[in-house]
Amino acid sequence: MNTLIIYAHPEPKSFNGALKDLAVSELQMLGHQVQVSDLYAMNFKAVADQDDFHQRQVQDFFKYGLEQNHASQTSGFAQDIKDEQDKLLWADFVIFQFPLWWYSVPAILKGWFDRVFAAGFVHGSEIGRYEHGGLKGRKAMLSVTTGIRQEAFTPYGMEGDIHEQILYHINHGILYYSGMKPVEPFLVWKPTQSEELRKQYLTDYKTRLHQLDEIPLISYHPNGHYDETMQLKKEYR
Amino acid sequence: MNTLIIYAHPEPKSFNGALKDLAVSELQMLGHQVQVSDLYAMNFKAVADQDDFHQRQVQDFFKYGLEQNHASQTSGFAQDIKDEQDKLLWADFVIFQFPLWWYSVPAILKGWFDRVFAAGFVHGSEIGRYEHGGLKGRKAMLSVTTGIRQEAFTPYGMEGDIHEQILYHINHGILYYSGMKPVEPFLVWKPTQSEELRKQYLTDYKTRLHQLDEIPLISYHPNGHYDETMQLKKEYR
Repeated sequence: MNTLIIYAHPEPKSFNGALKDLAVSELQMLGHQVQVSDLYAMNFKAVADQDDFHQRQVQDFFKYGLEQNHASQTSGFAQDIKDEQDKLLWADFVIFQFPLWWYSVPAILKGWFDRVFAAGFVHGSEIGRYEHGGLKGRKAMLSVTTGIRQEAFTPYGMEGDIHEQILYHINHGILYYSGMKPVEPFLVWKPTQSEELRKQYLTDYKTRLHQLDEIPLISYHPNGHYDETMQLKKEYR
Repeated sequence: MNTLIIYAHPEPKSFNGALKDLAVSELQMLGHQVQVSDLYAMNFKAVADQDDFHQRQVQDFFKYGLEQNHASQTSGFAQDIKDEQDKLLWADFVIFQFPLWWYSVPAILKGWFDRVFAAGFVHGSEIGRYEHGGLKGRKAMLSVTTGIRQEAFTPYGMEGDIHEQILYHINHGILYYSGMKPVEPFLVWKPTQSEELRKQYLTDYKTRLHQLDEIPLISYHPNGHYDETMQLKKEYR
């Protein structure tokens, strides 16, 4: 299997770094091909702007989505975007390794999504979205560390439900939208608590990496469950 | 009233730009003081890294939150961060003007939150969070444009509930966490549809700007509604 790890942490010796290193070594040992995009090491450009295109379709008004569509049709993306898109097309399984910063991804990873998950590449009038998205046929998994206790992320927890309120905009809004099938995330709660806890997490993650194919998919509705006004049909509620 | 507008769009002639310009002129006309952080024009640095601090507390291991705490105690933030923090302290009301990109803020604005909403400044062991957050006493409002129809963002809509699933990580996770009181967002649905629709939105926004004090707060629970395990007490469910 071709596996791609998108990794966003500024400190190589961090626990995020340890999880990324473990994934690389275990997946290679299991015979998978592995590529890593280490966004901080690459000094990946986070801000979407006009430099992302070789040539603009419209000169006097900059509309990012429109220029993405144009670049998709004319191979007009900046090289760093093109490289990441090629890795996605190569991959069967994509792991996103990051710390939860402000209940979302670090800005360098948000910028990776803004720039790489382009209109005309992962979605668009000729491609579709959700199950028809341009990255269909691939699975994706979030591997996330947080500094807050797990109990605060329950449906009645102080931070909100981790699945339905916090990670939803990533798992459903970005990954499922793109056509990929998101699997249950690997969640690391307050790894700073003890060395013992960190060791246990590494053991758990190793187990999961050995069973990539068996991780349950997150259960989202297929397009056909929605009516023409984009509402979930009554029989599926 | 001191009003601060954080504006994140790469095209000055965009509808986001028009909404920002309208807010500046109306608020000034009403006698408010107005400052604008035009993140694209400022070429605002989006990526949180070691250059954000004059001096590191720990040299051989980079932990962003720890260095933020240290910088808060030693006035050690990079100047661009300090400038934004000073604007926040000056402000009574903060408007965030941005397009919804991948169900969240553009990366340049996410980076603004990652870097400016620092540990030791908006939250921390000596400050607290949510109603005790460092920015308490201030209100905040999201003013957001989307390219998708409103009906898709209902509780049974294809994109998810705009309040509980999409904007929750910003309104609750970032703004409420910081101590600010978030008010109902101003939402602009598919303004590309027609010139007439855009005019109507500008009229609606003008009305709202004239009644800033009367915009309903988003109803979130105060800290005291949660028990010692961070669960909402039964009587408030």
